[in-house]
Amino acid sequence: MEIKKKDLDQYSNKIYDAIIIGGGAGGLSAGIYLQRFCLSSLIIDKGKARSFWMQELHNYLGLPSDTPGRNLLKQGKQQYEEVNGHLLNGYVEEITEEDEHFLVKVKVGRQNTIETTFKAKYIVAASGIIDHLPPLEDMKNVFDYAGYNLHVCMVCDGYEMVGKKCGFIAGSEASIREMIWNLSWFTPHITIFTHGLFEMSPELKEILAENNFSVVETPIKQFLGHDHQMSGIELIDGTIIKVETGLISMGSKYHNTYLENFDLERKGGNLITDKMCRTSHPRIFAIGDLKVGLNQVVIAAGDGALSATQIWRDLCRKSHHKQPL
Amino acid sequence: MEIKKKDLDQYSNKIYDAIIIGGGAGGLSAGIYLQRFCLSSLIIDKGKARSFWMQELHNYLGLPSDTPGRNLLKQGKQQYEEVNGHLLNGYVEEITEEDEHFLVKVKVGRQNTIETTFKAKYIVAASGIIDHLPPLEDMKNVFDYAGYNLHVCMVCDGYEMVGKKCGFIAGSEASIREMIWNLSWFTPHITIFTHGLFEMSPELKEILAENNFSVVETPIKQFLGHDHQMSGIELIDGTIIKVETGLISMGSKYHNTYLENFDLERKGGNLITDKMCRTSHPRIFAIGDLKVGLNQVVIAAGDGALSATQIWRDLCRKSHHKQPL
Repeated sequence: MEIKKKDLDQYSNKIYDAIIIGGGAGGLSAGIYLQRFCLSSLIIDKGKARSFWMQELHNYLGLPSDTPGRNLLKQGKQQYEEVNGHLLNGYVEEITEEDEHFLVKVKVGRQNTIETTFKAKYIVAASGIIDHLPPLEDMKNVFDYAGYNLHVCMVCDGYEMVGKKCGFIAGSEASIREMIWNLSWFTPHITIFTHGLFEMSPELKEILAENNFSVVETPIKQFLGHDHQMSGIELIDGTIIKVETGLISMGSKYHNTYLENFDLERKGGNLITDKMCRTSHPRIFAIGDLKVGLNQVVIAAGDGALSATQIWRDLCRKSHHKQPL
Repeated sequence: MEIKKKDLDQYSNKIYDAIIIGGGAGGLSAGIYLQRFCLSSLIIDKGKARSFWMQELHNYLGLPSDTPGRNLLKQGKQQYEEVNGHLLNGYVEEITEEDEHFLVKVKVGRQNTIETTFKAKYIVAASGIIDHLPPLEDMKNVFDYAGYNLHVCMVCDGYEMVGKKCGFIAGSEASIREMIWNLSWFTPHITIFTHGLFEMSPELKEILAENNFSVVETPIKQFLGHDHQMSGIELIDGTIIKVETGLISMGSKYHNTYLENFDLERKGGNLITDKMCRTSHPRIFAIGDLKVGLNQVVIAAGDGALSATQIWRDLCRKSHHKQPL
C-alpha cells in the first residue's frame, strides 16, 4: 500500500519493525521477506534506483535477458504490496535514535513539502549509489546513451563490449590503473578519455602508450549517435572519435548521508557488514551497493533476504527469551 | 548447448575454465556470469534441483509469487544457453586434481551408462542438498504433498502457515529445540510428530507440554488430503490428526561426495567459504545450499555471481601478471 500525503499522520505514530531506505532491488527483496516473516515494514523511496536506468538486465537469473531494470522494480513492488508492505515516496533526511527506536525524518512531496517522522525498531539502508557521469553542458545528451551502449558496470556489460571500439571515460588515474587490464579482457580497442578532469602522470602515459591504449585529454563536447546508440564522441575542439561502446568509471555518489549520526564502520565509501548484512550498529543493516562487495542486482536481492531473516531471528529470540530450550 | 551422449568425446579433451556441478539456481547463475566474462563453462546436472520441487516461489524478487521453481530453472537454462554455455545431463562421481587441472569423472545415461572425464581449471560446487522426507512405505504419498502445503523451509513458507493447524515432523530432538519457537512465531497450533524415529527426553516433553505443543510419537501411516492439499495425518494405529499445513525438519542429504578427495574446511555438513564463495581450496568454490549460510534461491543466485566474478578476477590477474600498473 502506498501511503498518501494526506494519510501521513495515520502512520507516523506506528512503530514499524523495520524501515527500509530505498526501493531498489535490495530494499524490495528485504521488504518482501520482512512481510513474509509477519513483520511490519515501510519502504521509503525517492525513486530512480540504479537499476531503474538499466535498459536490459542481462544477468538476473529467471528474467529474459532483455528485461528492463524498471520492470524488475515494478514486479518487485507488486510482490511487496501483495504481502501488505507499506511504501512511501519521500526523501529521508536524517535518522536519530531514541530509546529503543529510530526516528526517521522524511520530506514528502516536491511542492508543498511536508516534513514528517516515522519510527522503527530496525533500519535497512538500501539506498544504493548513483554513478557520476561526465559533466557536460547538456546532460540530456549523456542520459540519451548512458544505460544503453554507454555502460557503467564492467561486470554486467563487459560482454556487450567484446571486440568493440570502446571509449573508457575515467574519473581519475586510479580508475585507469584499477580497470584498464580488466577492460582489455573484453576488447583490445580502447581509447581513454580524461575529459580534462585530471592530469595523468608521465609514467602512466608511457605504460598506456606501450600497450596500445589511446589517450584523449581534451574535454568531451557531446556524445554522437541516434536512437540511444552512441557511435562517436565529439571533443570541444571539434575532433570526432568513433566508438561502438563505452564505459564510464568516474566513481559514485553514496546515498547514505542520513546515517551521519551513527559512527558506522566503513571501508572507503562502503559500509562494513557481517555475513547477514548487519553494520557495526546492531539494529542498522546495509544491503546492496551501500555495503562492501560486488554491485549486482541479484546480490542486492540476496542481501535483502539475509538482512530480513536476521531481523526476524533477532525479534524471534527476543520474544522467546523467557522460554526455555 | 546440451552435450549429447554421442558427442561426449568431442568435449572431454577441452579444458573448461570452470565446471559447475549442479544446474539449480546457483549453478545456472554462475554459468550465466562465467559465460558473460567470456569464460568457458560446463554445467553437469543430474536433474531435480531442490527448487524443482517448489510449487510456488513466493519470495524471489522479480517473479510473480505463484511461479513454480521449475519455471525459474527453465528460464535460467535458456539464459545460459543464449550465452553459449554447455550443459550435460550426468552424475559426477569423483573429482581429482592433476597439475593445474581438475579431472571430473561423470556417469552419463541411466541405460548403457558411459563413464567419461572432463577437465577444468576451476570447480563450482553447486549441487545443493535434498531434504530427508518421512520414510513411509508409500513414498508417492509423501511426494503428493511435499512442496505444496507440506513445507520444508520455514524461512520460505512460515507465512503460508500463519494461524494454521501445523504438523511439525521432526527428525531429532535437536530439530525440535532449534525450530519450535521460531515456528510458533507463525502459528500457536503445532503438533509435533516424531514418527517413532527417536526417543524424546522427559525434560523436553515436559517443556513442550507446558507450552501447549502436542506430541505424537506413533509412526505415520500416510498423509491424507486431495489435489496435493494435505488435510490430515493418519497414524499406524488408525488415529487421524487433522492438520492444515506441515513442516518437515528431518535434515538434509548434501550432494558433495565427489569432493571427498579434497580436505575442505567444513562446519557441520556445510562447506566454509569466504565472501566470494571460495572454499579452503583456492580453485574450488561452493555456492548455494552446500555452503554455510541461508538456504534461499535468491541467495544461491547471488552466490553464482560472486563465485563467477572471483574466478574471472583470478584469471584476469593471471593473464596480466607481466603487465605493469
